Amino acid sequence: MLQPPPAHPGMREDEIDTPALVIDLDAFEYNLDTMAAMIADKPVKLRAHAKTHKSPVIALQQMARGAVGQCVQKVAEAEILAWGGVPDILVSNEVVGALKLARLAALSKIARVAVCADDAPQIAAIAAAAENAGVRLSVLVEIDAGGKRCGVNSGPDAVALAQLIAASPHLRFGGLQAYHGSAQHLRQPAQRAAAIASAAEGCRRTVEQLRQVGLDCPIVGGAGTGTFMHEATSGVYTELQAGSYCFMDADYAANLDDAGKPVSTFRHALFVLGTVMSAARPGVAVLDIGHKAVAVDCGLPLVWQRPDVRYVGASDEHGTLNFGPETAAPKLGEKLRLVPGHCDPTVDRHEWYVGVRNGRVECLWPVAAHGAMF
Amino acid sequence: MLQPPPAHPGMREDEIDTPALVIDLDAFEYNLDTMAAMIADKPVKLRAHAKTHKSPVIALQQMARGAVGQCVQKVAEAEILAWGGVPDILVSNEVVGALKLARLAALSKIARVAVCADDAPQIAAIAAAAENAGVRLSVLVEIDAGGKRCGVNSGPDAVALAQLIAASPHLRFGGLQAYHGSAQHLRQPAQRAAAIASAAEGCRRTVEQLRQVGLDCPIVGGAGTGTFMHEATSGVYTELQAGSYCFMDADYAANLDDAGKPVSTFRHALFVLGTVMSAARPGVAVLDIGHKAVAVDCGLPLVWQRPDVRYVGASDEHGTLNFGPETAAPKLGEKLRLVPGHCDPTVDRHEWYVGVRNGRVECLWPVAAHGAMF
Repeated sequence: MLQPPPAHPGMREDEIDTPALVIDLDAFEYNLDTMAAMIADKPVKLRAHAKTHKSPVIALQQMARGAVGQCVQKVAEAEILAWGGVPDILVSNEVVGALKLARLAALSKIARVAVCADDAPQIAAIAAAAENAGVRLSVLVEIDAGGKRCGVNSGPDAVALAQLIAASPHLRFGGLQAYHGSAQHLRQPAQRAAAIASAAEGCRRTVEQLRQVGLDCPIVGGAGTGTFMHEATSGVYTELQAGSYCFMDADYAANLDDAGKPVSTFRHALFVLGTVMSAARPGVAVLDIGHKAVAVDCGLPLVWQRPDVRYVGASDEHGTLNFGPETAAPKLGEKLRLVPGHCDPTVDRHEWYVGVRNGRVECLWPVAAHGAMF
Repeated sequence: MLQPPPAHPGMREDEIDTPALVIDLDAFEYNLDTMAAMIADKPVKLRAHAKTHKSPVIALQQMARGAVGQCVQKVAEAEILAWGGVPDILVSNEVVGALKLARLAALSKIARVAVCADDAPQIAAIAAAAENAGVRLSVLVEIDAGGKRCGVNSGPDAVALAQLIAASPHLRFGGLQAYHGSAQHLRQPAQRAAAIASAAEGCRRTVEQLRQVGLDCPIVGGAGTGTFMHEATSGVYTELQAGSYCFMDADYAANLDDAGKPVSTFRHALFVLGTVMSAARPGVAVLDIGHKAVAVDCGLPLVWQRPDVRYVGASDEHGTLNFGPETAAPKLGEKLRLVPGHCDPTVDRHEWYVGVRNGRVECLWPVAAHGAMF
């Protein structure tokens, strides 16, 4: 279904219908500005990951601050961004199936589009799709940067695939995709630094071996919100793919900095606003925010600015809050903000962003690629 | 976004685009028939829970087999069902907020609509909405049947609310809502029996106390797929609210029967079909099914009819499969079915059901109330 928006501009925050996905616009813009400033003097560009925000509106704000383009994970996300005016898109993922590849090839007529591969048959399938559409597609080789998910080994395996790509008249070798996902939430800064140092070493070796066979490597892409300064200063990565930095979530905020404190580079800018729908029992309030409105795969949400109230359990449509006898009990009908544990899949539950500033609704943006699974 | 359907009628299953939500129509119809047969001679009716399927098409198939109506959790779900021809709908949940209550009151002009309450101010708000719309709304009192979520205590607290409802010229006392959610997945049958015996005792006492103050109790509603035969034979419950039985999921299939074996009353009828999108490393294959396509809040999905292949981890768009050296490795591009750990939120990730029989796509049904959060 297409849901009506839960608010209109000018409303007070407490008038927003719930559950609603709320952006604190001041914090959000602070995050965009902060990232742009932090990498301005580094030899890298930002290609922000749209899997977080799923919105061409937000993508264009990132590009206005210097991002060279966007990453996506699915062809449908690439379509939504291209149709919304984003000119340069990397599918930082494998795309398997003739139908999906035909869509990707068609899309490359209105935007610059690149895709990843980690297997020779995939490269042949991408070349066939490009030939059918009469286009030339840029293909990056994905290497396993340590996450043990997709990707070939760095070194000779990656070089062999790059040569296959470069040998096709319908393809262009775009570079290396080397995202280390499992490094992002290592809590200690030394762990994150070591993981990315190892990933960067694999990239460096591969770039050198590519050079030895006469192949230039235009892009070495990777990095997330947990590690991006390590990739930025690695000397080998050229593009950063951080996504969550624009919103932050409770899981990223649990990473520690060198002083042993929670990292505070970015601010919490994304919230799920809920209403207390039952307060019939002492010490308990029930919010209208359960699995359908917030993702709990990386931990339960936190109640914003209410450390005395804990979100203790989600069911499909309900979230249970507990609090002690000394706490001012949340009242029936009261609205509370939650900080999601994991922003990307939380955003995917919603169809609208409600942008708030100074307690008032300022804008409504569609979560345009909500549910874009193909 | 509204996604195009991932298939068309007549396709072979291996031609369906993925990720896709697939119904095995034979197993699904078996489940509907089995439930109808099991309660045919019991003093209860089925009011199946549409929070599972979110589809008027499925609702009407349940009603054709004897269900008296449907339950929903949200006003938006009630709207979708009523617009799809379902004539009798209970919101088995509290509805808080003037906007939502106005929609519910308006809806009662095209369908029989009832709602729950567990607090006096809610009852006043429902009465105001009914008065504004010029309708009379049926309100059930929710009692805490043991789940410690919403609901007042059984006995005098519930009777007091029932009297408030009955005293309003704009409301009608509809009965008791007494769903024991946390009993559904108690693994041992004796635990489930004891939990429902306790819930039924609270209902029985409350019905008796209502009678003493002159109030008839038209409905005593509750029960889920894990416990429904206990409510059906309790002598006090009159309506069963099972939802998952039509699909089953891995979590319900882990309940044990009296012989200590997994319950086998219903068949797995719901699957998420995925494609192997990376097979670059030995012992590992990556499916295109992660958090966006399958819910893992009640456990990871199982690979259907492939006990030698395990789904070991979900990220947003990827699912990692592990297998041993003796296994025939899933190949790049191969399609596999997963049995979701939890069917309700898995269905909510999708916009289309693909109905399959004998290896061919027979029908496409919209998940009409997908994302219905308000």
